[in-house]
Amino acid sequence: MKELVFGHKNPDTDAIVAAKAYSYLQNQLGADTEAVALGTPNDETAFVLDYFNEDQPRVVSTVKNEVEAVMLVDHNEPQQSADDIADVAVTNVIDHHRIANFNTAAPLYYHAEPVGCTSTIIFNEFKQRGVAVPEKLAGLMLSAIISDTLLLKSPTTTDQDVAAVKELAALAHVDYEDYGMKMLKAGTKLDDKTEEELITSDAKTFEMGGKSVRVDQVNTVDLDDVFAREDKLVAAIKQQNASEGYDLFLLMVTDILNSNTRLLVVGEPTDVVEKAFGKELVAGKMDLPGVVSRKKQVVPPMQEAFN
Amino acid sequence: MKELVFGHKNPDTDAIVAAKAYSYLQNQLGADTEAVALGTPNDETAFVLDYFNEDQPRVVSTVKNEVEAVMLVDHNEPQQSADDIADVAVTNVIDHHRIANFNTAAPLYYHAEPVGCTSTIIFNEFKQRGVAVPEKLAGLMLSAIISDTLLLKSPTTTDQDVAAVKELAALAHVDYEDYGMKMLKAGTKLDDKTEEELITSDAKTFEMGGKSVRVDQVNTVDLDDVFAREDKLVAAIKQQNASEGYDLFLLMVTDILNSNTRLLVVGEPTDVVEKAFGKELVAGKMDLPGVVSRKKQVVPPMQEAFN
Repeated sequence: MKELVFGHKNPDTDAIVAAKAYSYLQNQLGADTEAVALGTPNDETAFVLDYFNEDQPRVVSTVKNEVEAVMLVDHNEPQQSADDIADVAVTNVIDHHRIANFNTAAPLYYHAEPVGCTSTIIFNEFKQRGVAVPEKLAGLMLSAIISDTLLLKSPTTTDQDVAAVKELAALAHVDYEDYGMKMLKAGTKLDDKTEEELITSDAKTFEMGGKSVRVDQVNTVDLDDVFAREDKLVAAIKQQNASEGYDLFLLMVTDILNSNTRLLVVGEPTDVVEKAFGKELVAGKMDLPGVVSRKKQVVPPMQEAFN
Repeated sequence: MKELVFGHKNPDTDAIVAAKAYSYLQNQLGADTEAVALGTPNDETAFVLDYFNEDQPRVVSTVKNEVEAVMLVDHNEPQQSADDIADVAVTNVIDHHRIANFNTAAPLYYHAEPVGCTSTIIFNEFKQRGVAVPEKLAGLMLSAIISDTLLLKSPTTTDQDVAAVKELAALAHVDYEDYGMKMLKAGTKLDDKTEEELITSDAKTFEMGGKSVRVDQVNTVDLDDVFAREDKLVAAIKQQNASEGYDLFLLMVTDILNSNTRLLVVGEPTDVVEKAFGKELVAGKMDLPGVVSRKKQVVPPMQEAFN
């Protein structure tokens, strides 16, 4: 029975690539799966797919119309998944995030590790099961790890990610440092993006303390360049909070060269944000030196502050 | 920082043994852990620990008074865990059940597979990490798999469980068929148990459709022997439903020689039970030929009938 494999909504490079990699692995092991995506690739991912001459995945928003069962990669929270995820069985999950609001009726295969990237876990599964990673797929998985770890500089980076990058770079015949910087810069061309696009492209929704908290991250090589558009960004966020029912919106603008984040906060409760990071908001903003990871440095302190 | 490792409340052999096995593995890999239990061993487990000359684990009900973080085996649902599980971080989970109401603030290591026994998954982790299983621990893990799979006869049994039993039996120098039958029979001495003990010793609580559903399983070699005490069992269950707030109580009385279950149902809604198994209750009972697994043959149809 065919199953679909996919990453989270607003897919980043890992969400797209991990689905392709896990689908390939499962098919080699005898399953019948297809990798799809819950959205179109962003600029960085488009650069990656083009570089390695790989097709864009088919985009879907619902799955029950095609299959009875699915495999999730790089997410588990239902609000980040297919719109009708509650109507199908989840048989496999490969992830590196917290587990929240994820419930199943039956036992399943679930493999999560607190590492920098889902593709790192999948690379280890290839090795455990004795399946070789083709050269092109190695390049894609390498790209996902570089993306999630900001070229191994994010505090989410583990020894396993470093080892996987080196092994995959050798398999893909790529100089990962040179390629990685080109790839990350391809994801920071913000001038031709609307404010609406900037606050949507990498955003995820989290339930915290009964509130709907939206956290978006924009990578840049120049913070001032983004904050020159602050008024328009705030207006776009206010509109989206109202139309989508978000209580609180955190826009992480992350300087990938210096590994810092400036946070723009719109909505309520803002005192929880101040409590989470132990500093005051000034005109709705705060600088967070050394913060680059939503998953490790923003979501857990916010969750704790809400509790 | 020390962590505690434990299985579910009302521990069965796998809950006790998997904690010991995973704690041993983690300590070999450099962690500082202690295996504890959320209850005293049942008759079967006491037989196993005595047979292999292994100490009973220390029993705890709360954990925050000792540690900041814990590792769970053979369960994830909070109502089956330590009373104060919400107050500590869960860093590792090894399990073979559905995932329900399990939420974390941060990423973690989670390894679940739809196999017959947690100890099978842990045995595979020993092999992946290149850690040898000592002879005594092999005997304990073998016992856990025999217990959970009713000597490899339960429909939850997978090829992985069969392979693990054979490898562990060789490591433990045990004839697993002969030993396994003795061990299972040691768990069915019901005459010296009170009705209160029979309806408590292997019971688990599940949240389904907003109801608190309690499912207990009693293994026997003679169904009539247990149902001679039906009136007293019903009275004890009614009392417990009232005192503990269970809406619905399912007592699975399982004939381990013939692989059948007779279900005794007390509480409401009973129509959901009839819907789940597609047959009528007669005087609060129904025979379920071929049913021996709570996890695979009772919880999923009940969950589906509630949905």
